[in-house]
Amino acid sequence: MQKKLAKLGHVALVTPNLEKSHWFFHDVVGLNEQKREGNKIYYRGWADFEHHTLILIEGKEAVLDHIAWKTHEAADVDYFYDKVEKAGLSPSWVPEGEEAGLGKAFRFKLPTGQVYEIYYHMERPLAPEGKRSRLKNQVFKSFDHGVSPRCIDHVNFNVGNPSESMKLHEELFGFKVREYIQLDNGFEMAYWTSVTTLVHDLAIMFDEAGRQNRLHHTAFYLDNFQDVARAADIFKENGIELSLAPGRHGISQAGFIYAIDPGSGHRLELFSGGYHIYDPDWKPVLWKEKELAEGIIWWGPELSPTFLAESIGPKE
Amino acid sequence: MQKKLAKLGHVALVTPNLEKSHWFFHDVVGLNEQKREGNKIYYRGWADFEHHTLILIEGKEAVLDHIAWKTHEAADVDYFYDKVEKAGLSPSWVPEGEEAGLGKAFRFKLPTGQVYEIYYHMERPLAPEGKRSRLKNQVFKSFDHGVSPRCIDHVNFNVGNPSESMKLHEELFGFKVREYIQLDNGFEMAYWTSVTTLVHDLAIMFDEAGRQNRLHHTAFYLDNFQDVARAADIFKENGIELSLAPGRHGISQAGFIYAIDPGSGHRLELFSGGYHIYDPDWKPVLWKEKELAEGIIWWGPELSPTFLAESIGPKE
Amino acid sequence: MQKKLAKLGHVALVTPNLEKSHWFFHDVVGLNEQKREGNKIYYRGWADFEHHTLILIEGKEAVLDHIAWKTHEAADVDYFYDKVEKAGLSPSWVPEGEEAGLGKAFRFKLPTGQVYEIYYHMERPLAPEGKRSRLKNQVFKSFDHGVSPRCIDHVNFNVGNPSESMKLHEELFGFKVREYIQLDNGFEMAYWTSVTTLVHDLAIMFDEAGRQNRLHHTAFYLDNFQDVARAADIFKENGIELSLAPGRHGISQAGFIYAIDPGSGHRLELFSGGYHIYDPDWKPVLWKEKELAEGIIWWGPELSPTFLAESIGPKE
Amino acid sequence: MQKKLAKLGHVALVTPNLEKSHWFFHDVVGLNEQKREGNKIYYRGWADFEHHTLILIEGKEAVLDHIAWKTHEAADVDYFYDKVEKAGLSPSWVPEGEEAGLGKAFRFKLPTGQVYEIYYHMERPLAPEGKRSRLKNQVFKSFDHGVSPRCIDHVNFNVGNPSESMKLHEELFGFKVREYIQLDNGFEMAYWTSVTTLVHDLAIMFDEAGRQNRLHHTAFYLDNFQDVARAADIFKENGIELSLAPGRHGISQAGFIYAIDPGSGHRLELFSGGYHIYDPDWKPVLWKEKELAEGIIWWGPELSPTFLAESIGPKE
Repeated sequence: MQKKLAKLGHVALVTPNLEKSHWFFHDVVGLNEQKREGNKIYYRGWADFEHHTLILIEGKEAVLDHIAWKTHEAADVDYFYDKVEKAGLSPSWVPEGEEAGLGKAFRFKLPTGQVYEIYYHMERPLAPEGKRSRLKNQVFKSFDHGVSPRCIDHVNFNVGNPSESMKLHEELFGFKVREYIQLDNGFEMAYWTSVTTLVHDLAIMFDEAGRQNRLHHTAFYLDNFQDVARAADIFKENGIELSLAPGRHGISQAGFIYAIDPGSGHRLELFSGGYHIYDPDWKPVLWKEKELAEGIIWWGPELSPTFLAESIGPKE
Repeated sequence: MQKKLAKLGHVALVTPNLEKSHWFFHDVVGLNEQKREGNKIYYRGWADFEHHTLILIEGKEAVLDHIAWKTHEAADVDYFYDKVEKAGLSPSWVPEGEEAGLGKAFRFKLPTGQVYEIYYHMERPLAPEGKRSRLKNQVFKSFDHGVSPRCIDHVNFNVGNPSESMKLHEELFGFKVREYIQLDNGFEMAYWTSVTTLVHDLAIMFDEAGRQNRLHHTAFYLDNFQDVARAADIFKENGIELSLAPGRHGISQAGFIYAIDPGSGHRLELFSGGYHIYDPDWKPVLWKEKELAEGIIWWGPELSPTFLAESIGPKE
Repeated sequence: MQKKLAKLGHVALVTPNLEKSHWFFHDVVGLNEQKREGNKIYYRGWADFEHHTLILIEGKEAVLDHIAWKTHEAADVDYFYDKVEKAGLSPSWVPEGEEAGLGKAFRFKLPTGQVYEIYYHMERPLAPEGKRSRLKNQVFKSFDHGVSPRCIDHVNFNVGNPSESMKLHEELFGFKVREYIQLDNGFEMAYWTSVTTLVHDLAIMFDEAGRQNRLHHTAFYLDNFQDVARAADIFKENGIELSLAPGRHGISQAGFIYAIDPGSGHRLELFSGGYHIYDPDWKPVLWKEKELAEGIIWWGPELSPTFLAESIGPKE
Repeated sequence: MQKKLAKLGHVALVTPNLEKSHWFFHDVVGLNEQKREGNKIYYRGWADFEHHTLILIEGKEAVLDHIAWKTHEAADVDYFYDKVEKAGLSPSWVPEGEEAGLGKAFRFKLPTGQVYEIYYHMERPLAPEGKRSRLKNQVFKSFDHGVSPRCIDHVNFNVGNPSESMKLHEELFGFKVREYIQLDNGFEMAYWTSVTTLVHDLAIMFDEAGRQNRLHHTAFYLDNFQDVARAADIFKENGIELSLAPGRHGISQAGFIYAIDPGSGHRLELFSGGYHIYDPDWKPVLWKEKELAEGIIWWGPELSPTFLAESIGPKE
């Protein structure tokens, strides 16, 4: 049986304005600060058990630094290193101390430019006294400040050739297609794919220009749609730009809101509900061109025709 | 002290397709049918204590038939009859049997064409066995079918001269301005006004063409925004057109969704939250032209520039 | 027509541990601090327009200091002064500067020992910059910290003879009975009564011992039951004792949670939903002895038989 | 690597009053009827993709008939048949036609008396026209009638020796312990265990008497706690006994309500929220004797000391 990855671990984002991005992700969104070190701040939601699920890195321009995936076993890190190397993707080990909390891990660049990090060992520190949840199965107190999402949910990026990228994710890492969009001309434009029971740990969208290292958004999880509405209230009171007002996706069924980090322009989704796929005989759900609009927005704001294409990446 | 009306009683709408409108308001929206008689069906929400808060009347075209207001005392009906007569608005008594459940009442036409009915006595029947709430302070079981709103909330119509209409409502009936929009040129374009603690029992919008008997929408109340999201799910599953996707108004602070009755084209708002004004020294809240957009949509769908003007009325 | 009061203004509570009570009402409950002066701290919810709706006063023992009611007009303060004086209840004017923000006002002691304050003028300050809502019809930002209730809702106290107290409230101040409990022996044990459209601004419960100046609880308003659940999460994380776990009352239909201020033992209710009475011909809802249990708890925690009697007052 | 089961498929319950149980599970709870055949009715939630997740069987007494588990692959059915046989648990193939929609499957009795069914093939019919969701990733319309839960969630039963039963589930089927209770004397009293990312597909509680074939409850999933409150409203309006009023478990973090089927006495949980375990290096969460009370009820109704022991099974 082919080995697959266990889960999305974290996302690392570069921001040209670390303090403003910290205000957004910490004060407004309500993530918990785990550690500051050099030009990096590490964060996690109140039910993220590992050391961090988001890293902000001060840097020249707002780009994706890397996306980290956890393996099922310690030995899988070597297994995937070999597989990536054989695929010609030039993995390299992450130097010790480069990333707080992290054990043995390697990084490599996808053909589409995004850097992946593969790891198994990650510290699982308790929250500091005073911020620690009284619940034994939770890390930080919930609703301590800001919107206060539960945990990381998924990541979404754009590539020039979605089918090719999807195939690579299937073959290298065991991702399964859960839902996808196929245009009338046969072109498969977007995939929602996962290694977990989630509809997507990763969504792969089309980038017409085929640019390198594009990122569409990072998503954290809220427990219900009332909390999405509360997030909208909090974003508006803090003058945060809503990239997409609250609504429900058809694809994934999730309640959503999208906001823009004013320090970097990175897009954050707060994602609520959705469904889990426990059936091993799941047949990928096909959304045709004429169904695309309701697939993206089941109800909610009108979809800008360019929304799916509005990714962030290095200036050329 | 000037007498004022007690509350919005009900709205009567003409529909060219009674059965389709019944399917919408009863099966989908989930109002309770109280009575069928001739070409009329009477409805109410599960916590509307009076005989009806909505009447559908089969007729040639979709128009407002009348809006009914309840007085504080029986004697006030005569008081307001005189006042309306002195204002030259030609009231006439409603013939007995014309409207089910109704006691002594008169009707008259506003200068802007909408017909008002003023009454005090209205039957307050229990719900039929099997549909009756087990709660002593509630009428029908809640969440029995469809969206299931609690009660009528407000009505919203368009007139050629909002200030003039507002003044008439103040002088005749004791309405107070709660919030309003004033454009940069000084023109007062819209009023949210009430005789109760609600921000509005009535909203008066501008109709550029100054047409007669325009109606913008009728609103029923939902207890929370999660129920607004559930309403959106139910509307979408039933193929109902959303006139405006869920969001929050700045003015009134209400969570909202607007849907179109496919039998008539009448617009229904399901309205949630909002605030009450208990302060007798309330100062009307002014929204200036540059604040108008956030006043109408605090967060939610993009506002069509014509939304406020999209009223329904007699074909000319 | 008899004059009636306009609304509940605020409640002032004495606490033997001001800082711990401040931690509870400010940090955990999330009320906004308006002013500190001497041994007093003034608070309000994010949509309380007047200067304060809660005062905490440091003092020897946890007792009710006073309950304040606002009149409809400035002249009504004198009107009620006379009425109270004629009723033999010895009103006295509040010295200027005694209470921040307050205009002309008098206080008197009810025959049951609770002190009432009657006022019309109260400052309506904006929230300080940085905490001020961007909404023109709101004061503070909502969900800024803690549970974050909207506004004051009602007060509930115990007296030796509820009928007598109810009668006094009707005759002096125009309160109307909205719902009440009558035991099989004819004894009317509890009233929910209001001068507004709320089911109750005031609830009057029975105190078997007929003690002076008993207070059962003060209630603030939450917009929905999801926020009640969130309040429960926040209370538990902060080690707050729940006096009654979340549930729904039959009487008033409200979603509720009750918590205890660890600094004083005062009981706070967070109250959500409920209904408004717009009908002037409302007939008080009678709950008989056998209906009492579902009237108090429609669904939720089992009712302790002594819950209604567990009031707070001066040690004897 | 040891093979594990894929997911909980369905639960089959015997009821002495099929029509009354149908009224409860269909009309009140809002499950969708898939098929009636002989003395059986098959149901599923609006997002259960397989033919059924609940079977009601008319019979002499209210007992568990069987619990069905789906394998990851078709070949796994034979694999587990052998494994069960080697364990001396006497599997037998389910005769064709015995259960609607089911492919090749076998059943066997646990040492504790509960019958398990192991299958891979199950029909995945579309919902009938008119009841079919317009969403391509959903089966039935949601919120069509009754409470309307999304899907089956878990099952909970009592055994004489929880550790022994837990060990058997680990060794035979790959279940992992997620949370558990250990008393001061070292006795492990209860396990929450899963083969999916859920905290539990199965909970194993203690039955002091060590009786055969005890069932504590079957659980279906609701998307949020507001829907749990709505379920409480619907149950109360229909006179349904609440076995446990709404609250939140510490263990699993789930919002809950428990109700009793008046036709059989079977207990249903509606379960909301909770968390998923994506971490392969999850360390089972231990709840000690002194933490047990908050583990069972984080907030909500007072726990009856016998609640966990109140299972249903054959009369002796």
